[in-house]
Amino acid sequence: MDDTRTPADSRRDDARRDDEFVDAAALAAELAEEHPADIAEALDEEERHTASAVLASLPREKQVEILDLPDFDLSSELIEALPVEEAVRLLTDMSADRAADLFRWMEEPARSHLFAHLPAETQAELNRLLAWPEHSAGSLMTTEFVTVPANWTVGETLRHIRAIERTRETIYAIYVLDPDSHALLKAVTLRRLITGAPEDPILSVAPRHDPITTSPLTDREEVAKLISKYDLLAVPVVDEHDHVLGIVTVDDMIDAIIEESTEDVQKFGGMEALDEPYMEMGFIAMLKKRAGWLSILFLGEMLTANAMQHFEDELERAIVLTLFIPLIMSSGGNSGSQATSLIIRALALGEIKLKDWWRVALRELPSGLVLGSILATLGVTRITIWQLAGFHDYGEHWVLVAATVGAALIAIVTFGSMTGSMLPFVLRRLGFDPASASAPFVATFVDVTGLVIYFTVALVILHGTLL
Amino acid sequence: MDDTRTPADSRRDDARRDDEFVDAAALAAELAEEHPADIAEALDEEERHTASAVLASLPREKQVEILDLPDFDLSSELIEALPVEEAVRLLTDMSADRAADLFRWMEEPARSHLFAHLPAETQAELNRLLAWPEHSAGSLMTTEFVTVPANWTVGETLRHIRAIERTRETIYAIYVLDPDSHALLKAVTLRRLITGAPEDPILSVAPRHDPITTSPLTDREEVAKLISKYDLLAVPVVDEHDHVLGIVTVDDMIDAIIEESTEDVQKFGGMEALDEPYMEMGFIAMLKKRAGWLSILFLGEMLTANAMQHFEDELERAIVLTLFIPLIMSSGGNSGSQATSLIIRALALGEIKLKDWWRVALRELPSGLVLGSILATLGVTRITIWQLAGFHDYGEHWVLVAATVGAALIAIVTFGSMTGSMLPFVLRRLGFDPASASAPFVATFVDVTGLVIYFTVALVILHGTLL
Repeated sequence: MDDTRTPADSRRDDARRDDEFVDAAALAAELAEEHPADIAEALDEEERHTASAVLASLPREKQVEILDLPDFDLSSELIEALPVEEAVRLLTDMSADRAADLFRWMEEPARSHLFAHLPAETQAELNRLLAWPEHSAGSLMTTEFVTVPANWTVGETLRHIRAIERTRETIYAIYVLDPDSHALLKAVTLRRLITGAPEDPILSVAPRHDPITTSPLTDREEVAKLISKYDLLAVPVVDEHDHVLGIVTVDDMIDAIIEESTEDVQKFGGMEALDEPYMEMGFIAMLKKRAGWLSILFLGEMLTANAMQHFEDELERAIVLTLFIPLIMSSGGNSGSQATSLIIRALALGEIKLKDWWRVALRELPSGLVLGSILATLGVTRITIWQLAGFHDYGEHWVLVAATVGAALIAIVTFGSMTGSMLPFVLRRLGFDPASASAPFVATFVDVTGLVIYFTVALVILHGTLL
Repeated sequence: MDDTRTPADSRRDDARRDDEFVDAAALAAELAEEHPADIAEALDEEERHTASAVLASLPREKQVEILDLPDFDLSSELIEALPVEEAVRLLTDMSADRAADLFRWMEEPARSHLFAHLPAETQAELNRLLAWPEHSAGSLMTTEFVTVPANWTVGETLRHIRAIERTRETIYAIYVLDPDSHALLKAVTLRRLITGAPEDPILSVAPRHDPITTSPLTDREEVAKLISKYDLLAVPVVDEHDHVLGIVTVDDMIDAIIEESTEDVQKFGGMEALDEPYMEMGFIAMLKKRAGWLSILFLGEMLTANAMQHFEDELERAIVLTLFIPLIMSSGGNSGSQATSLIIRALALGEIKLKDWWRVALRELPSGLVLGSILATLGVTRITIWQLAGFHDYGEHWVLVAATVGAALIAIVTFGSMTGSMLPFVLRRLGFDPASASAPFVATFVDVTGLVIYFTVALVILHGTLL
């Protein structure tokens, strides 16, 4: 940990550092004119201590701009690598939501060490932000926003904004408060504000509708929906008395939306969501995220061996049935996976609600029957052609075998569509993330049942002939 | 189509319309104070002709605000249902990118009919926008943005913005052009502009770095990355001479990002991406999106029947081998699905590039071996316990059978991880969307090869005993 850098350490490193300092200063000078996001990208490619030295050589304002970037993953490491006074200065200057993020990512003992050096006021503010659960509006919000009392004029508001612009995350939304209760009355956009005459009251440029707000415990997915629905640049987070606690800005939301969909895709692929990019994640950490689900699915899939054992006599008498096991099982899994991906996404976007499960079931039942019939036609045609053309001999009862395959396909694809579409509802009802209904999970579930369906259909159709 | 509404039709409908008009006017009065997004939501729940009547009764400004919402799917239908003069008036007033969207969604003959009635200037502007390919920056951009020559002052710029505010999609970014060549020099934010003194030159409040721009043919995924990386509210789209053609705003981008991830999840689930919400899509249209891929996967999976036929003699001699076919096949599919979901997402986010394929291969090879060994241990343990506890008799050579299952699992899980991780690279290299490497696609691919691996391992280990 870098808080172990004592003056003694520093002296020991002096020779190496001198060289580095020259390089770092040169690089800093070269980068100073670039966009903060590009400087961050360049720092990401340097060794950590070089990056830290370059950051220290940049103008103060640039430092803060870089650390304020919501997707600059290196920032907590860089802050840890800086001398404590420097780190404290930056943490106080940067936006509160980002400083809170850094403390979330930092490891002990560096975390406590740095926190103890912060001014009491900053500590209190960060503690308030850090208390909210991860991915809640409270944990994403910043406390640097603009409020004005409702009895101000447009001109007073503009003068106020000019004075405080540097210290606020966004000034594009101005929150107008009741002068007595400090409750939120209206949200005024900067674009409407500048069109007002200076002597007009601030409320004259406010929209007629109530401001769109959210509560600190709202999940980021819901906040993203609000921002997207109302095309907001920021949404105020209010408590039960309509006091503004903070604001969540659109740029933080874009990162949250991208993160959420990455998690969804990874979960749907049948693994725990990674919290780091693929290439940056350690080999062992990555294995852990994958091995757990893979083993659970394997244990579930072991039931197929039980099902097969149960029908071993039938298998021995009609070995021809085994030829189609993979084909039939996978068709059930595929139709289930399609249905699941549709419903997970529709639930995530709020297109359908929990109470719509029966509407979905009424749609998936006929869908499954039609899709199953299409595959059954393909399967029966395949067996007929192979038999008649002499590619393979399925035995004297080949017509009955084809009928078994066809009937089993219709039943299994219908079962797959129904299971795949209902599973996300069941998971949500039980309080799990519907996205945990991964393609492999659905396939495993359908595989076991599919085998039982196949052999049952076979027993009915082939009874008295093959079985 | 609604352009067939002649005056005669209108007279015929008069009685019904009178009632509706009262309702619509009442509803419009009730909704007028709401946020445009909420009015849009309310309209969505009405019958189309009622919604159209309500829209017509709202104040002009509200009408435009509602139609300007990027995710209001009903807008093209409502516009079609309005009298032509009314529709033309709204199409001219609304933002150009949204008007272009509406024409993309409208069906003939209403589309050509309405277009012919637009003023020549609007027609030319829309034709320019409609010429860009779907999902390109050109197709998403709006042409209503703010430009000022570089020799203006802060005060002149502010006065200009106040005058044109109503007619521009966003005024939070002001594009400063070279007074002679009209090439883009700088992008100034409104927040910096209002902090400047009125007599200062506009360039005094410009950032030092060059403006971030994109070209009209850039895909929306790339534009989203720019907006997210640089935390922009809008990105200017420029031609080869740095002339600003339009701007893409952050609210359009959020919708694009959500749409892209829905498409990715649906494709990964093994189907064509839907272009409408699940519940709104017609039954037949939905079947078409699903049946195609399901049939292709089925035809691919038919190869498993060929593989099984090829090993039919071995199957008959060692029926015990069939018991583990579903278990082994699905493990390969699951490990492949995990690897694919990881790589698809990492490629989509730009965390890894095409040239990194060998790095990924070097990671997935040992991952596959370790994961395969874990599953092999579970599988061998299962067989041993069942055999020793007397749950099932796998025959006198059960140790060799267990060894076959274990070795096959290691080989197949490794093969699954490698195939699953390399397939997205191959697809991208061939110019396809890596997201087309769906979980069912990978599973099908791995199933067929998995069977061949399983029987080959069996032939080696069981040669001379069971086979």
